[in-house]
Amino acid sequence: MTAHGANSNPLRDAADRRLPRIAGPSGLVIFGVTGDLSRKKLMPAVYDLANRGLLPPGFSLIGFARREWQDEDFAQEVHDAVKQHARTPFREEVWQQLVQGMRFVQGNFDDDDAFATLKSTIQDLDKSQGTGGNFAFYLSVPPKFFPQVVQQLKKFGLADAPDGSWRRAVIEKPFGHDLASARELNAIVHEVFAPDQVFRIDHYLGKETVQNILALRFANQMFEPIWNRSYVDHVQITMAEDIGIGGRAGYYDGIGAARDVIQNHLLQLLALTAMEEPASFDADALVAEKAKVLGAVKLPKDLGLATVRGQYAAGWQGGEKAVGYLQEDGIDPGSTTDTYAAIKLGIDNRRWAGVPFYLRTGKRLGRRVTEIAVVFQRAPHSPFDHTATEELGQNAIVIRVQPDEGVTVRFGSKVPGTSMEIRDVSMDFAYGESFTESSPEAYERLILDVLLGDANLFPRTEEVELSWNILDPIETYWDTHGKPAQYPSGTWGPAEADEMLARDGRSWRRP
Amino acid sequence: MTAHGANSNPLRDAADRRLPRIAGPSGLVIFGVTGDLSRKKLMPAVYDLANRGLLPPGFSLIGFARREWQDEDFAQEVHDAVKQHARTPFREEVWQQLVQGMRFVQGNFDDDDAFATLKSTIQDLDKSQGTGGNFAFYLSVPPKFFPQVVQQLKKFGLADAPDGSWRRAVIEKPFGHDLASARELNAIVHEVFAPDQVFRIDHYLGKETVQNILALRFANQMFEPIWNRSYVDHVQITMAEDIGIGGRAGYYDGIGAARDVIQNHLLQLLALTAMEEPASFDADALVAEKAKVLGAVKLPKDLGLATVRGQYAAGWQGGEKAVGYLQEDGIDPGSTTDTYAAIKLGIDNRRWAGVPFYLRTGKRLGRRVTEIAVVFQRAPHSPFDHTATEELGQNAIVIRVQPDEGVTVRFGSKVPGTSMEIRDVSMDFAYGESFTESSPEAYERLILDVLLGDANLFPRTEEVELSWNILDPIETYWDTHGKPAQYPSGTWGPAEADEMLARDGRSWRRP
Repeated sequence: MTAHGANSNPLRDAADRRLPRIAGPSGLVIFGVTGDLSRKKLMPAVYDLANRGLLPPGFSLIGFARREWQDEDFAQEVHDAVKQHARTPFREEVWQQLVQGMRFVQGNFDDDDAFATLKSTIQDLDKSQGTGGNFAFYLSVPPKFFPQVVQQLKKFGLADAPDGSWRRAVIEKPFGHDLASARELNAIVHEVFAPDQVFRIDHYLGKETVQNILALRFANQMFEPIWNRSYVDHVQITMAEDIGIGGRAGYYDGIGAARDVIQNHLLQLLALTAMEEPASFDADALVAEKAKVLGAVKLPKDLGLATVRGQYAAGWQGGEKAVGYLQEDGIDPGSTTDTYAAIKLGIDNRRWAGVPFYLRTGKRLGRRVTEIAVVFQRAPHSPFDHTATEELGQNAIVIRVQPDEGVTVRFGSKVPGTSMEIRDVSMDFAYGESFTESSPEAYERLILDVLLGDANLFPRTEEVELSWNILDPIETYWDTHGKPAQYPSGTWGPAEADEMLARDGRSWRRP
Repeated sequence: MTAHGANSNPLRDAADRRLPRIAGPSGLVIFGVTGDLSRKKLMPAVYDLANRGLLPPGFSLIGFARREWQDEDFAQEVHDAVKQHARTPFREEVWQQLVQGMRFVQGNFDDDDAFATLKSTIQDLDKSQGTGGNFAFYLSVPPKFFPQVVQQLKKFGLADAPDGSWRRAVIEKPFGHDLASARELNAIVHEVFAPDQVFRIDHYLGKETVQNILALRFANQMFEPIWNRSYVDHVQITMAEDIGIGGRAGYYDGIGAARDVIQNHLLQLLALTAMEEPASFDADALVAEKAKVLGAVKLPKDLGLATVRGQYAAGWQGGEKAVGYLQEDGIDPGSTTDTYAAIKLGIDNRRWAGVPFYLRTGKRLGRRVTEIAVVFQRAPHSPFDHTATEELGQNAIVIRVQPDEGVTVRFGSKVPGTSMEIRDVSMDFAYGESFTESSPEAYERLILDVLLGDANLFPRTEEVELSWNILDPIETYWDTHGKPAQYPSGTWGPAEADEMLARDGRSWRRP
């Protein structure tokens, strides 16, 4: 455990860890504070944490942007964002406390004066708010500004923590657009920040159901014995969106579904689903296992048979007519960007050899759903009449990531009646029904983790690079082989994706 | 397969077995037709089967009793019983068809004239109703009359089926009160009827949820891999009643809970839960596996530590004052009959060595419930903080036999919130919610099986004797060691039963 690690917060060592984890003296600097993410997610998350009593009394929030704001304007902006987007009720006394530590620093990312002001603001807050030199820098800015910001932080000594304190950098995806650019980005960041100072946000990992994969697998005795090639037929990981690209044409075109979702979210879900049990939930131990399994991922030889990409065409969604991707504002009518991607992967290790992992994601699909389905083989032998089981499917454990968070188990049960007929039934665990505690937003969890120095839920350099290493050959193949297949908006993707599974004698779940 | 076997009904070989199984030409003779069982269960079950179209058009029902009835009186009696107790709605046309085949034979069980009349009645029905010589004799009479009835059936040639037809005997528990008396009874019955002509009713085996144990275990891939000593910590099989002995003092006193429930119901549930997969669901294959596992049951050396018996004392049940067993009408105030029994058994085979099976049954307990709980070991290692899992119990699969028929799986899940805390949750499959088909009564299923010659759900001679072989040493031990412990009505049995599990570091479920 380093000076930046979890133990730097003495409260974490409280005898009763079941007390909520509370951040020690600290502050957060948000670059790009006028952006959408900041207003809709970060500001509300900071307030919700404060409201839940998980932030220290003197917690400070510094906004950094070009906008000509005073501290009061910034505070007003946060106030409005909180009122509109916070999860927990607005309480004036919480707000009054929080606003004490709010500062705004105006400037461009290459502006020396602004960074000098930032430095003195931090020092002032250390005195007035008791932040103790502990600051996290949240780079909520387009990737092209990363080098500038981190270089400026270095130049002004802001990346170096005074004795006994910590400095951390938080960065948002995209972590590059291929392996080369990811390496370049990592090199830039790590020139200034040590690996355990860098927190990459994959907000999927902040979701309760994603963290529950670990609890489900490793706190129970029932699941792990059947979680391997002896019993599992295949795994399907789906993230389906019903919306189109909305106003994100500029970002999305040229990136596409595989880079936007599979490289980070779905490969992280795959890693958590398939990895071996870590020695502990220490970030290092966890990263080691995730990296091990990502490193064992194998692409099938013929990428033409093992991948499918699609592009949504016009269609109907939620009773409304939807335009095709190529007709969206700001999209080149000749664009070959994938809005749907499906990939079949193998994992070359003792646990998973021969078990296909099917990953798919897409926009304008039938409905919004993210799930991991572990589908089991049929029983190796059935002592029942053939006809007794002809309506029986395969057993499955489905982890429902969103919406309707929970777990479903599908299995065969006798149909009531005087003959032995067996049909699929399912049993269900719903987060919402089983717990009175409501789930924090992913960003609440992740920001708190940053302040606590808990790196478990943040992908590390090697994971990012390993993921690109999986995706690069696919993108290259696609670049040189035709165009995405069209699929009508509101359907479950191109026919080619169904054919891909049909060749293996399988079919996609209709979640 | 013999002439008496399942294949004697040509309909069973229909290509599509998912069609409901329909009995071929046949009739049922009920001895002791004026009794409670006949009125509340057998008559309604016959009607319900007819109403569901599962009986042949000429199906015949002969009542045999001492009562001075004519056919019309008997038909009226059946009519009233059906109206009061049948599961399905009363339909006049079904009734009119059924009543055509109803006859009453008046006489004592040693009355030669009566049996001669019975014989000619059967012959008449073969002509008028087309029953084809196929008759089942249901001995709904106290055991002391068994020898008389079967001897008379033999004397009048009624046990011998004419060519191409079948004769079967149906007997109700108790199948003796110890191994010696059970052997004696079996010898008497088998002097007249071949083993595959004899159907012993354990109505528990007719319950949907009990049959579902087989579907659950062997039609699925998920459960069988963990269904053994490597993963199972112990098994609890409970049949709790909230009622007292009611008007059954004469039968119950001197018999007690262990003989009344454990010897048949609970040991059958144990056999279905613990047995190896049978080669098929042919009755012979099934009996072979059940007998194998019952033969492997081992009593612990010190029966004082591995068994507990109790007697209900006065207390409160359902808001009403309840008297103790010794104060019940017709009970000897010095009676040592057990109204509660708990037994710890082992199974000496590769699958179950070292896994205790705890069986308990009792009257006047907290509530009416029958369940089988397979309780798993804790995960062999937890990578989580000790405090994260301190509220976590053991995984369990609970088969709810009655009421609320279904299956519950208990496992650990992350509690929503910003720390990793894991708590027990459960997921549930409820028969009533998952199927639109309603469950037939156990007696419907079992009577239909008798008419079809399907013996799967009927314990055979060897199972009955093996069960007594398990119980005999316990009853002998109890006879020579003190008295039952008293427990207040409405509680979960004597403290000694809790202590028995506490010595093993375990506790009874509170279902």
